[in-house]
Amino acid sequence: MAVGLTSPGTLLAVDGIKLGTAAAGIRYSDRDDLAVIECNPGTTMAAVFTQNRFCAAPVVVARDHIAKTAPLALIINSGNANAGTGESGHQAAINTCQQLASALSIETEQVLPFSTGVIGEALAIDKISSAIPECCNNLAADHWLKAAEAIVTTDTVAKAVSTRCDVAGTAVTITGIAKGSGMIRPDMATMLGFIATDASITQSMLDQALRQTLANSFNRISVDGDTSTNDACILMASGCADMEVIDSVDQRSYQIFVDALQPVMTELAQAIVRDGEGITKFVEINVSGGSTEEDCAEVAYTLAHSPLVKTALFASDPNWGRLLAAVGRAKVGSMQLDQVSISINQCLIVEQGAVARSYTEQAGQAAIDPDELVIDIIIGNGTTRSTLWTTDLSYDYIKINAEYRS
Amino acid sequence: MAVGLTSPGTLLAVDGIKLGTAAAGIRYSDRDDLAVIECNPGTTMAAVFTQNRFCAAPVVVARDHIAKTAPLALIINSGNANAGTGESGHQAAINTCQQLASALSIETEQVLPFSTGVIGEALAIDKISSAIPECCNNLAADHWLKAAEAIVTTDTVAKAVSTRCDVAGTAVTITGIAKGSGMIRPDMATMLGFIATDASITQSMLDQALRQTLANSFNRISVDGDTSTNDACILMASGCADMEVIDSVDQRSYQIFVDALQPVMTELAQAIVRDGEGITKFVEINVSGGSTEEDCAEVAYTLAHSPLVKTALFASDPNWGRLLAAVGRAKVGSMQLDQVSISINQCLIVEQGAVARSYTEQAGQAAIDPDELVIDIIIGNGTTRSTLWTTDLSYDYIKINAEYRS
Repeated sequence: MAVGLTSPGTLLAVDGIKLGTAAAGIRYSDRDDLAVIECNPGTTMAAVFTQNRFCAAPVVVARDHIAKTAPLALIINSGNANAGTGESGHQAAINTCQQLASALSIETEQVLPFSTGVIGEALAIDKISSAIPECCNNLAADHWLKAAEAIVTTDTVAKAVSTRCDVAGTAVTITGIAKGSGMIRPDMATMLGFIATDASITQSMLDQALRQTLANSFNRISVDGDTSTNDACILMASGCADMEVIDSVDQRSYQIFVDALQPVMTELAQAIVRDGEGITKFVEINVSGGSTEEDCAEVAYTLAHSPLVKTALFASDPNWGRLLAAVGRAKVGSMQLDQVSISINQCLIVEQGAVARSYTEQAGQAAIDPDELVIDIIIGNGTTRSTLWTTDLSYDYIKINAEYRS
Repeated sequence: MAVGLTSPGTLLAVDGIKLGTAAAGIRYSDRDDLAVIECNPGTTMAAVFTQNRFCAAPVVVARDHIAKTAPLALIINSGNANAGTGESGHQAAINTCQQLASALSIETEQVLPFSTGVIGEALAIDKISSAIPECCNNLAADHWLKAAEAIVTTDTVAKAVSTRCDVAGTAVTITGIAKGSGMIRPDMATMLGFIATDASITQSMLDQALRQTLANSFNRISVDGDTSTNDACILMASGCADMEVIDSVDQRSYQIFVDALQPVMTELAQAIVRDGEGITKFVEINVSGGSTEEDCAEVAYTLAHSPLVKTALFASDPNWGRLLAAVGRAKVGSMQLDQVSISINQCLIVEQGAVARSYTEQAGQAAIDPDELVIDIIIGNGTTRSTLWTTDLSYDYIKINAEYRS
């Protein structure tokens, strides 16, 4: 079902970062469902978490811990989100951290917990406790793929990306894993991303790098607009590469690092969309010409969340009336109607706010038939732009979310 | 497919208002598709139109005409929205008004045009011209049902409501018709409402009555959040009832009138939802306890537009995790997490922001099984509330919007 997504290629080990996995039997049998990531002392870490007010217990605990310490270990379970579980869920998340801290001889608050899976069920802390020793026993720098496979829930493909860049003569590695199919898993709490580098970089520049690259990747994907209770994305830098620390003075090295990080973040984020629930089309929406980037993004989200647009995409129907109506209802001040143009895969469909003179139904049909689409929209003569990635809306989306309660 | 919706009951004639219909053959065969409403001289009229920037040609013309004159006639065609049709569409809308004005011996600008149907096709003005004489020949006060039937597109049930109230000893009649299935017809431009009364009321009080009652009816329904290019709602008052004019001084008579008008508006608006595309559940969402009505409405809309909530409703799945997650992502400042409660058909599911202690899966299942649901949500201890009506999201929604391009 995934569109343009295959299993990960070669994954590069990141000096200073080890990963271990185990089968705890939390929900799935015959597969690993628990992963530990251990970081070298001195690792800096940046984190962002879900904006959902009903965030899960592990999110509350992870936020608390990272505010107090420099974390040295992460523990991630799949199959149970530990969300909507009240005070006992909170204790289970803390207990998980205690168990791993004891095994690694670090402080409880140096562990960040993550959970993904069914909402509203008690986390089986005994199963996690039993599996932690095995995770710790097989910690290794080349276990990225095993970790990527351990954290998936109903994903159909494991998601991982590696790259390398040259920062002032030093080879710096970046490897990341993610899980999720947008924010749309049935009863699942969904998106997790863990990206590691051996770069040496200050905390503030690492924070900036995460936020900057996130804005154009994980924060620009949408399958159905539903935001999970467990979303989290972590960027960790072990500092093991032999290099000058990237700081705010060294903007050139920072830019090289961010230029290498951005494609990793973007590819992981796109992988989540490509594996979206019931997907038959992978769709990039580029909106430009607004007076602010927010205006452009608002138009893009309006299309991405329009059931009429999404069902037309599913039907491979070049239904420009629906596209135009969706653009028209976006709450955007800087739109200039007589300058609106819309193209699908470079076929001009709408120009000057009406159907293009050159447009033919045959050309539109040919443009919308592929399973990868780029929709370009110009809304005025402003200089800003925004890009997001989304899916169509298919029978399988309904099937997965209505017939199947896991 | 409609939920709790049958053909209209007895419809009351409104003194001073006549309706005529004809089969123009614009798109459908073997049925009327053109309606004319003629108003007594002296009729006051209030109107609201779509907020979509790409509004249809008839909307542009109707807005222009009502700003300049006191309209005396309306002409409505189904089967073609005359939207996205550029300058020739604009001329077709004006031409339609000219033809009817000539037949009724009034001014072109005293006619308001309305169209509903397929977007992007040229309006066959010759077919409309040919059918106008028949419409005018059968103008009669008791043709409300025929008009309601003439303006539908893919609606499965005609929508019309009548009521009567006593204003200071005078019997005042209110009758209205509407068409649409939310904002979700495939290629259809959708919601139209025409409500008439014989009350005598000033223009400013009529405007106020329309806006006030609309806020709690047509403006509080949503099937999928897609706003049409042709939406319009017209309230006309012939003044034929033998009564004192309702003005801003006579607040008591105004209130009696509004109290009678509100249920007509609400029933017509609900009829549109009950006939919503692919509907299997008619859902009322009441949100209270926010510090502003807008906060309450925002939470209600977030649920109404959540594909995860809507597919759970379709599945009759009491999936409180999805409800809680949707409430949690609403952008509302006044929400107090530890006071959030959610009930479905009076079964308490969430209390104090977590699953209710009294909740059982069996009770939840029994509560969500009926095809009419009331979801009550409290988000804090504020004093405001908001109600809206919506549907589930079913296979048939996808079928109608993906497989069928009309």
